[in-house]
Order: sequence, then C-alpha cells, then structure tokens
Amino acid sequence: MGFDRLIEAIEQKQNPTVAGLDPKLDFIPSFIKNASFAKYGNTLEGAADALLTFNKGLIDALYDVVPAVKPQCAYYELYGWPGVKALYDTIAYAKEKGLFVIIDGKRNDIGTTMEAYASAHLGTVAVENETFEPFGGDALTVNGYLGSDGILPLLDICKGRDKGIFVLVKTSNHSSGEFQDQQISDQTVYRTMGNMCEHWGEDSRGRYGYSAVGAVVGATYPAQLGELRTALPHTFFLVPGYGAQGGGAKDVAPAFDPNGRGAIVNSSRAIMCAYKKGGYAEAQFAEAARTEAVRMRDEIMAVIG
Amino acid sequence: MGFDRLIEAIEQKQNPTVAGLDPKLDFIPSFIKNASFAKYGNTLEGAADALLTFNKGLIDALYDVVPAVKPQCAYYELYGWPGVKALYDTIAYAKEKGLFVIIDGKRNDIGTTMEAYASAHLGTVAVENETFEPFGGDALTVNGYLGSDGILPLLDICKGRDKGIFVLVKTSNHSSGEFQDQQISDQTVYRTMGNMCEHWGEDSRGRYGYSAVGAVVGATYPAQLGELRTALPHTFFLVPGYGAQGGGAKDVAPAFDPNGRGAIVNSSRAIMCAYKKGGYAEAQFAEAARTEAVRMRDEIMAVIG
Repeated sequence: MGFDRLIEAIEQKQNPTVAGLDPKLDFIPSFIKNASFAKYGNTLEGAADALLTFNKGLIDALYDVVPAVKPQCAYYELYGWPGVKALYDTIAYAKEKGLFVIIDGKRNDIGTTMEAYASAHLGTVAVENETFEPFGGDALTVNGYLGSDGILPLLDICKGRDKGIFVLVKTSNHSSGEFQDQQISDQTVYRTMGNMCEHWGEDSRGRYGYSAVGAVVGATYPAQLGELRTALPHTFFLVPGYGAQGGGAKDVAPAFDPNGRGAIVNSSRAIMCAYKKGGYAEAQFAEAARTEAVRMRDEIMAVIG
Repeated sequence: MGFDRLIEAIEQKQNPTVAGLDPKLDFIPSFIKNASFAKYGNTLEGAADALLTFNKGLIDALYDVVPAVKPQCAYYELYGWPGVKALYDTIAYAKEKGLFVIIDGKRNDIGTTMEAYASAHLGTVAVENETFEPFGGDALTVNGYLGSDGILPLLDICKGRDKGIFVLVKTSNHSSGEFQDQQISDQTVYRTMGNMCEHWGEDSRGRYGYSAVGAVVGATYPAQLGELRTALPHTFFLVPGYGAQGGGAKDVAPAFDPNGRGAIVNSSRAIMCAYKKGGYAEAQFAEAARTEAVRMRDEIMAVIG
C-alpha cells in the first residue's frame, strides 16, 4: 500500500535514487548502434534494438545499486512503435532484475480514458479469456490539470495492485514558475496541486505514512521542496533536476523527512552518459554508469544521514 | 501555417467536426474481433488487429464526410506495443484517405524530452542516414502545466512542418473546475492558460488569423466557450464533450467566430458506437457511423449557419 514497496527497496539498498532511462541514440555507444544497425538496418527497429541493448547493459550494471529505474516514454515514442516495444522489453527486463519501475509518461485524461491509461501502464487488460499487463510499470507520472476525474480512475488500480502515481506539482524546469508559482487565493498553484495530492491519497496510506499519490517536485527549487515536504506529510516525492539540470545533494536534502524517507531523486543523463566524461572507453559505459550511480548514492546519503 | 490546412478541410467538407477513434474492444463488432482472434489468438496482437480493422472500416465510411480524425492514445496503449502499432497504422491509413489527424495524447514534458514528443508525434527522427515519421500526426493535444519549457520545443516543428497543437485550457469533465476554475489574481486558471496560448501562438498565425497553438475547451461549458472565443481571437478550439458527455449543438455554437470558423467539435462514442443504437446489424457499423456523422454535421452547421 502507498509507496511501501519502493520505500523498502530504498532502505534495503540504502539508496534513495532512481536511474532515468532516457536513451536517445546520441547517448548510445557506437559499438551497440553498429551491431543493431547491422542486424536491422538503419530503421526504427534498428534504433529500438540499440535502445534495448543499451538499457540492458545499464540495468545489469545498476540493479544492485539503485532500487528503481524511470524510463521516459518520450524517448521510446521517438522511435515509433518499435521504440515503444523497446520500452515494454526494458520494463520487463528491469522487473526481472527486481527493480521498481516508474514509467515517466505524465499521462492525463478523464474517466474511462484515464482508466485505459491506468490499465495500460499499471494494470491489466483482458482479451477474451486471457489477461495481459500491457506495460507493467509499478508507478506512473501523471498531470493533474484535469482535476479528480483525471486522478480517481487511477486509484482503484493503485490500491488493488499496490501501485503508485506521481502527480506533477512543482517541476524542475526554468519556466515552471510561469504557471505553477501564480497565486490562487493565498497560495501558489503548485501548493494547490500539492494539497490535492494529499486529499487524493487519503485512502491509500501505507505503513510509513505515505500514500499511493506521490508528487513530482524539482531539485532545482530547494525552498519549495522544503515547504512542500512540511505541507504534504503523506505525499512521497519524485525529485527530478539533480545533476544535468543543476540540482545538487544539498538541494535535494529538504525533500526528505526526519527519518530520511519521503523522496527518491532521479538522475538520467549523468548516469547514462557517465562514460562520455572522465577517460572511459565506450565499452565501459555500464561501468561508468555504475560508478556515477554509486557516487550519487554516497553524495545524497551523506547529506540526508 | 497555423491551422490553415484544417480550416480549409473543414470548409471544403462544410463540416467542423472530428471523429474520435477510441476503439475499446467493447465497441468493436464481434465479427471483426472473431476474425482477428482467429488469426492471432486471444492476444494483444489479436486485439490490435481488431482495432485497426474497426478503424479502417470507420475511416472508409467517414473520410468524405469529416475533415479529421482524432485517435486517443490511451486506447491504443491499453493493448501494449501492438496497440501502439495499430495507432501508427491507423494514422497512416487516415492520411492516405486525406484526413487531418489529431493525435490526442495530452503529452507534456520539458526541453529535449518535449522535443522528443514533438518529433515523435508531429515530426521526424533520423536513424543514421535515414529519416522516419514515427507517428505522423498533423496536430497533438498537450498539457501546459509545465509552462513555456513544455510548449516552445513544439513550436519549431509546428512552424517548420505546418503542424499544430491543442493545449488543455478548459476541459469538458465534471471536475475540471476544481483546479481550472480557481482564481489567479483577477482571472481563472483556464483563462490564464488561454492567455498563454495566445502568447505562444503569436509567431505562427495563418491566413485566417488562427495560430498553430490551439486550445481544448469543452462543449459542456458553453459560457466559458463563449468567454474564451472572445478573449482568444487567434486560438483555434478543439471542442470535446459533444454527444456522449452531454454537450449539444447549441452548446458548441459559442466556440465559433462570426465567420463560422475557429473550432472543430469532436464526437467519439456517438459515431463509433452508432450501430449499437437504432436497429442496425453489427455488419452495418460503418454505415451507422456515417449516418451519425452526417447527422452531427447537419446539426452543427444548422446552428453556426
């Protein structure tokens, strides 16, 4: 219930970080791409094969260090349906390795359509007498602009299948304030959305006090992270913006509660592209990713204690 | 530029409506499903084949009546990557028939990730020396909660490739007001988002005055439709909520400008499932859909004149 499974995986690995799997072709070592293109030609299938091979290498190197991975849907859709198949295969492989999988799709819609997204990413679908997990994620990022009609359809699946969602609250990007920092009565838009998360999560709190309705709060706004940690005591945070976007370990510290719980920090490019810095050969991409993931873990654990 | 292509298709067919293609298995006639399951088994591939067959039947029956179709991503993702392949194949078939394709994905993210969504749904992607259209839509629905960082990455592709976006402004659902009707200073959240659409669209206005940045405004809130039509003179509207959600022809009239332009009204279930009402055999699903689309066209044209 709630984010208990994720929280326990974090404690077991002593690592509140998640590795983003956002595999642009530019990020992938040439030897992997060459092998995939030799097999499938310069096609979307070839690109998708390279994505999957890269991801498997990263997962093999990371699965005993990080508790979770976060594939970003956009980078798979970029390669059409073969890319989306690579997303499915990546998730299946990560789960085989015991990882918690956060699908970063920022999905949003209403009613039966939102139910379809919930079933697709976190649930199951029936085809006559057979049942399938279309993508099989453990959590999904969502956008709450449409109100309760866009969130409630997810909650039955979250409660019944021990899954969770992360609602965009205060995002890490430079322009997030244009809209999210505006004032609604006596509070900001992001705080309003945060309060809605607390409300939506009331019936799904787990044994650590956190509900199945988490929030996305960027590392690049540490003051707001602290404000929201205090204001939203039952809302678990997914914190993007660490590393490449400029957030550091001190910036993410306010996301955690006094028990060192309450958040998971994402790093994508810094881990995936670690081999491009600091004297690695391309063939060492996985080793470089692991070294960076360990460094990030140690840096964050040192700050949250 | 802007939504000129769509506006001209609407005028040519004298029909400002778009047929939603949201093919749940429940909506599909048994004879189609049986044939697909006989070929592929009770699998996601079988479901996807049924989706595509159903869509092709609808498109064949509708392509000379409606100017556009709007596949809803959720119903394809529901059947996993084979479902997403059916989305791709549906879009390709609709374009072969000369239809304008609005991909209803409500995508949102920032920077290079949003660029990836833009390339995926509206643009192209390079794989070595080859270039592909991953999905090939003409327009994409998006969610503006993240601010300019989530919208600007789309605009280069819109301007360069004559494509458009529809930003969620005032959605058709019952609870849309929870968040969207709240007051930011002296105006609502939805009006604030609407004003951002006008701003984002400033550099992409076409020959009818409408920019490439449209807005989603629900048929179920006619007063707000009228308010926004006046306040956002360069923003083309995609209007959901007609038919099954309760909006009627009189409700959508305020979406149009004095020239009868400025909006396209969506109907999904009423068209797709027309055969389930009024004495049709399953084999007549396409004929029933066409009859309903013609009825809807005539009803709306009578109101906007």
